[in-house]
Amino acid sequence: MALKTLSAKAAAALDKELMSTGAFSIDQLMELAGLSVSQAVYRVHPPSRGRRILVACGPGNNGGDGLVAARHLRHYGYQPTIYYPKRSKNDLYERLVKQLEDLEIPFADDFPSALKSADHIVDAIFGFSFSGEVREPFPAVIQALGETKLPVTAVDAPSSWNIEEGPPKSGVGSAFNPDVLVSLTAPKPLVKHFKGRHFIGGRFVSPTIAKKYDFELPEYEGIDQVVEVGAGGQKL
Amino acid sequence: MALKTLSAKAAAALDKELMSTGAFSIDQLMELAGLSVSQAVYRVHPPSRGRRILVACGPGNNGGDGLVAARHLRHYGYQPTIYYPKRSKNDLYERLVKQLEDLEIPFADDFPSALKSADHIVDAIFGFSFSGEVREPFPAVIQALGETKLPVTAVDAPSSWNIEEGPPKSGVGSAFNPDVLVSLTAPKPLVKHFKGRHFIGGRFVSPTIAKKYDFELPEYEGIDQVVEVGAGGQKL
Repeated sequence: MALKTLSAKAAAALDKELMSTGAFSIDQLMELAGLSVSQAVYRVHPPSRGRRILVACGPGNNGGDGLVAARHLRHYGYQPTIYYPKRSKNDLYERLVKQLEDLEIPFADDFPSALKSADHIVDAIFGFSFSGEVREPFPAVIQALGETKLPVTAVDAPSSWNIEEGPPKSGVGSAFNPDVLVSLTAPKPLVKHFKGRHFIGGRFVSPTIAKKYDFELPEYEGIDQVVEVGAGGQKL
Repeated sequence: MALKTLSAKAAAALDKELMSTGAFSIDQLMELAGLSVSQAVYRVHPPSRGRRILVACGPGNNGGDGLVAARHLRHYGYQPTIYYPKRSKNDLYERLVKQLEDLEIPFADDFPSALKSADHIVDAIFGFSFSGEVREPFPAVIQALGETKLPVTAVDAPSSWNIEEGPPKSGVGSAFNPDVLVSLTAPKPLVKHFKGRHFIGGRFVSPTIAKKYDFELPEYEGIDQVVEVGAGGQKL
């Protein structure tokens, strides 16, 4: 049975609700989202498989989740490198960057050369609020993610995919199929086109909220912040 | 070899530094501290040993850590009850309470009767900033914590203990010896008087900060947010 999905519009409304009546701050939600991503990376690619993780961050919340994940990965013993070409001037993002700088985590300017010395990639470029065109400098980055043989873990959505429709028919992103996807709070409709290992993260949603937005809370185990579900969103 | 400890004064300076030059928000730090506590509780008292956790929260940051821990414990499948008689009017604390209410977590007014239907207690009343007298209504609560046969997990410090000197010589708290202690960032000097299971939490401190404050970062395993060390702070 496929898990229920959350449209881009519903995901935006849910986010807004968590931060208004839900009383969460974005600091809290981003911390827990990034933590989920870091736990999924650890599960699919433990440090014994290679410690060099390249985290590609976009300009919005998806990028912020990546910045948080990179910090946790560093504490797990990885050696992250950040590619973050379009930095937000928002205070939270500047603080997330400072936290990484204090851990001596390098920021790369050149994506292709950073890719050459990585063992695993995290795609935190665009999330559920993406639509329309991929702006510079990300087309070449997403092209490279589609071509690399390195494993890629995408945060919430494979970047450039349409949230409802999945991969673009042609051009940038049409050949991009990440190995791992971490859906935050609930899978998005694009998941039906996804073939890799699929996790759900975001263990902070109340049963009331899940009911209101008509999705199921996955059955997390123990203290885990992520749970693996089937590719395409089937329950395992 | 005993782990190095952090005096009350140094712990206050460290907290201040994390939130100024360290660029962390209190939302982030409290989220990660509370998460650490929830993981320690899960380790020493998994849900199979009883799901009813009474979380006693004081008016300050230690209480906030308890509120966050209770939320995570609820997501792990526990049934927490909160005792929080002196609520902070600070926005963060009001939001943490709302997050618990949205999970239908009950708040108890009467500590003795809440104690009767608990399997495990979390003492999040006072932390490293405690000194002087225990104020109402906490003397009777700490007295009850000293008398109960239920296991108690203390957050950062057994409440009423002097941070440097340990348990008071007489009166409230002199008979209080919790079963478990979760030291946040680094053990406090009182740990030399503590005989139970001892964990360190707070996996967000950079090596530079640890060096500056002259303590060792413990060797966390995997993705764990806590690590068990010896009673009294010896390395295991």
